[in-house]
Amino acid sequence: MMVGSVARKTCVHGDRDLDVFMLFDPALPREDLEREGLALAWSIAQQYTDIIREKYAEHPYLNATIDGFDVDLVPCYQVKEATGIQSAVDRTPFHNRYISSRIGDFTDDVLLLKQFVKAGGVYGSDQMTEGFAGYLCELLVLHHGGFHNLLKAAAGWKPGMFIDIEQHAAKWFDEPLVVIDPVDPCRNVSASVSDTKLLEFIELCQGYLKSPSKWFFYRPPICILTEEEVSALLKGRESAFLAITLKTPPYIEDIVVPQLRKSLHTLVDLLKRHEFVVIRADTWMLEDRSMLLFELLVDTLPAVRFHAGPPVTAHVNAAKFIDKYIHSDIIFAGPFIRDGRYGVELPRRYRQASDLLSSNEVFGTALGKHVKHSMKDEFVVHSGLECWQPGFEPFISEFLQKSSPLVRIRRAEARTS
Amino acid sequence: MMVGSVARKTCVHGDRDLDVFMLFDPALPREDLEREGLALAWSIAQQYTDIIREKYAEHPYLNATIDGFDVDLVPCYQVKEATGIQSAVDRTPFHNRYISSRIGDFTDDVLLLKQFVKAGGVYGSDQMTEGFAGYLCELLVLHHGGFHNLLKAAAGWKPGMFIDIEQHAAKWFDEPLVVIDPVDPCRNVSASVSDTKLLEFIELCQGYLKSPSKWFFYRPPICILTEEEVSALLKGRESAFLAITLKTPPYIEDIVVPQLRKSLHTLVDLLKRHEFVVIRADTWMLEDRSMLLFELLVDTLPAVRFHAGPPVTAHVNAAKFIDKYIHSDIIFAGPFIRDGRYGVELPRRYRQASDLLSSNEVFGTALGKHVKHSMKDEFVVHSGLECWQPGFEPFISEFLQKSSPLVRIRRAEARTS
Repeated sequence: MMVGSVARKTCVHGDRDLDVFMLFDPALPREDLEREGLALAWSIAQQYTDIIREKYAEHPYLNATIDGFDVDLVPCYQVKEATGIQSAVDRTPFHNRYISSRIGDFTDDVLLLKQFVKAGGVYGSDQMTEGFAGYLCELLVLHHGGFHNLLKAAAGWKPGMFIDIEQHAAKWFDEPLVVIDPVDPCRNVSASVSDTKLLEFIELCQGYLKSPSKWFFYRPPICILTEEEVSALLKGRESAFLAITLKTPPYIEDIVVPQLRKSLHTLVDLLKRHEFVVIRADTWMLEDRSMLLFELLVDTLPAVRFHAGPPVTAHVNAAKFIDKYIHSDIIFAGPFIRDGRYGVELPRRYRQASDLLSSNEVFGTALGKHVKHSMKDEFVVHSGLECWQPGFEPFISEFLQKSSPLVRIRRAEARTS
Repeated sequence: MMVGSVARKTCVHGDRDLDVFMLFDPALPREDLEREGLALAWSIAQQYTDIIREKYAEHPYLNATIDGFDVDLVPCYQVKEATGIQSAVDRTPFHNRYISSRIGDFTDDVLLLKQFVKAGGVYGSDQMTEGFAGYLCELLVLHHGGFHNLLKAAAGWKPGMFIDIEQHAAKWFDEPLVVIDPVDPCRNVSASVSDTKLLEFIELCQGYLKSPSKWFFYRPPICILTEEEVSALLKGRESAFLAITLKTPPYIEDIVVPQLRKSLHTLVDLLKRHEFVVIRADTWMLEDRSMLLFELLVDTLPAVRFHAGPPVTAHVNAAKFIDKYIHSDIIFAGPFIRDGRYGVELPRRYRQASDLLSSNEVFGTALGKHVKHSMKDEFVVHSGLECWQPGFEPFISEFLQKSSPLVRIRRAEARTS
C-alpha cells in the first residue's frame, strides 16, 4: 500500500520521500513480522537499487534510494479498526484512507500550507523541529476549509488550542496544541508541537494576513557567518560559549534528536546546580557528529560556595551536620542558619564550567540513552571559538542571529525591496 | 513612674539603662504632652547632669547620663485601661504592673534567661538584633515556670510557635514566634523576632540542655581580624565584596536599623534584577556611619543581556516591540520567542556591580526614608579590601567568620578546654 503525501498528492516540491507500507496479517507474531517483513523488503528493494539501509524507528524497516527517491519499505499490520493498532506504523494506512476520502479540492491548500510552514521553519514530521507535520497540515486545512480560512483562525489562537474534528477525544492532553487524531481518539496529532513553534506559527499567520510576500513561501536563506564574523560576535557578547560534540548515535533523527534535547536540558540543569547561569542552549545533529551548545553568563566562579544542610529542627541530622563541619579546616565560614537550615561555605569543586562538563558528573545526569552510550565512548568539550566546528556553521550562525520566523521574513523583504 | 527592668529588679549586670515614664492626663492633646512633657523632663534632668540629648522614637523624649546611668525621661499618657493606649510608650506602665505583680520568685530565672540570650547573641529590645526583648523574656519565664522549664519547652519549638498566656488573642499573626501581649490582645510581643533568631534560640536551648557550659552566659569574644587576615580571606573566597557607606541618619537605632535592613533588601533585589548573584548581604549602624555590605558571586557581567518583551499573543504590544527592534543596530540577536514572549538580546547597561550601586538606579528602589535622605546627601561605594572601613572591623570580622550562636559557643569551649 502506498501511503504518505505522494499517495495523497499533497507532497510539495523538493519532497522526494515515498513510503511503501507492507501490510501483514495481525495474527502473525511481532518477531515473525519483523523477520519476514524485512526479508521481503530486502528482496523487493534489491530488484531496483544497491543503496539500501536497515533503519530503526519503533521497529526495523528498510530505506532505499531508487531513481533519486528516498523510499521507505515499512512492514506493518493490516488492522481492520484503528483500535487494533499495535504500533505507530499500523496507524498510517488509516490516516491515508481518512485524508484521501475527504481531501477533494483542498489538495492545493494543503500544498500551500506545507510550503508555508516549511518556509517559516515550523514544519517538521519529527521531534527535531517540534513543528507541524504533513498529516497535521492536512487535518487543519480540512477542518477549517482551506488555507486562508485556517490562517484567519490560527491568527487568533493561543497556546491551549483544542481541535477535535470527530468529537471523540478519549483522553486529556496538555500539550500547547491539541488536534485529536480522527482515527485514534487517544492520540494528539500535534503532540510534538512545542509552545514556541505554535507561537511562531501564529505569528506567521498574523504576519501573512497583515502583509503577505513571497518570503512566506520561500525560506529566506540563512546568512552563514565567517569565522572572523563569529569571532567578532563572541568578543562583542563577552559571554562564554561551551560546546560538547559527540559521535551521532546510529539511529534515526526521530530517536536521536529527542535524546539530544533531553541531554541538553539535563546538562543545563547540571550547570545551574553548580551556579553557572545559562543564557541559551541548543543542540544539533549531523550525520556523523552532534553538538550540545551552551552560552553562559560567566564560565568562572569564585572559590567559595554555600552548601545547604538539614533543617535546624531536624535534630539528629542537624547535629551530624554541625559535628562534621564545626572543627573542619576546609570551610570558609559556618555552620550558620539560613532559611531555616544549617549551611556552610565550602571550596567549590568546579570553578570552570568546562571542567564540570568534562567531568564524570555528566554521567550522573539524565542523558538520553544512546547519547550517554556515545559520550561514554568519547566526547569533546570546546570553548569559545573552538565551538565553531566543521559542519555546524549553519547551526551556530543561526544561534548567533536567532530571530523569530516573521522577523526573518520581514528582514528578507527589507533586503530585497 | 519607674518602669523597665530596674523597676522590676530583672536588670542584668552591665545594664545601665533606667527608664522614667512621666504620666500625663490623657485629656491633654498630643502636642501639649510633647511640649510640656519635654519641658518638664529638661528641668528635671538639668538638676542632675549636663549630658542631655533630645531623641525621637514614636515621640520625642530625653536621654540623660546621670551617675553613669543612661536615663530616659519619657512623657506618656496615664491611661486606665490598656485599650486606651495611644502610643507604644503608654503601654509600658501596663507591662510594668503585669510583671511586677506576678514575677515573685522568678526574678533570678529572668536574669538567667536575659544573660543567656545576650551571651547567645539573640537578645534585643530593638529591630537591630531581631531578638528576644526583656519583656518577652519575663513573659516566657512566667509562662513556663522558670528558666529550665522554658529551655526544655523551647528546645522542641518550631517556627509557628504560638503562646497566649491570657487566652485573649484578638488578631491573627504570622510571625515565626507569636506571644500575645497579656495587656494588649492585638499585639505580638515577639513581632520583631526573625525566623533565624528564633531558630538560633532553639539551637541554644538544645545545646545547653545537652551540654551546658559557662559560654552560654558569657558571650565568646569576637575574633577581630587584622587587615592582612581580611585580605587573605577575600583572596581565598575569590568572590566580590562591595559596600555602601553613608552618614547614619540622626534617629535612634529602632528607627534607623529597620530602614537599613529595608534598604539592604531593596538593593539586593536591584542587583538581582541586573543579574548579579548575591551570596550574602548585611548591614551595620555606627554612631556616625552606616554600612550596607554585599558579597557577590561575580562583579562583572558580559555585554549581552536578554530583554523580555510582551507576550506573543498581546498583538498590539508585540507588534510595537518588533517594530522597535527589527532594524535596530544595537541588538545582538532577536527579536525571538522565548517562554511565550518576544525578547531581544541587548547591550548591558551596568556590567560592573559597583557602577550599578553608584548610579541613580539606587534611588529608584524602596530605600528607607531616612537612609535615602542621607544617601542623597552623600554615599561611597567601596570594593574589595576598601570595604574594611574604620569602625566596621567587628562587623566585617563577624561577617567573614559567620557562625551560629551554638557553634560559636562550642568553639569557645574547645579553645579553652
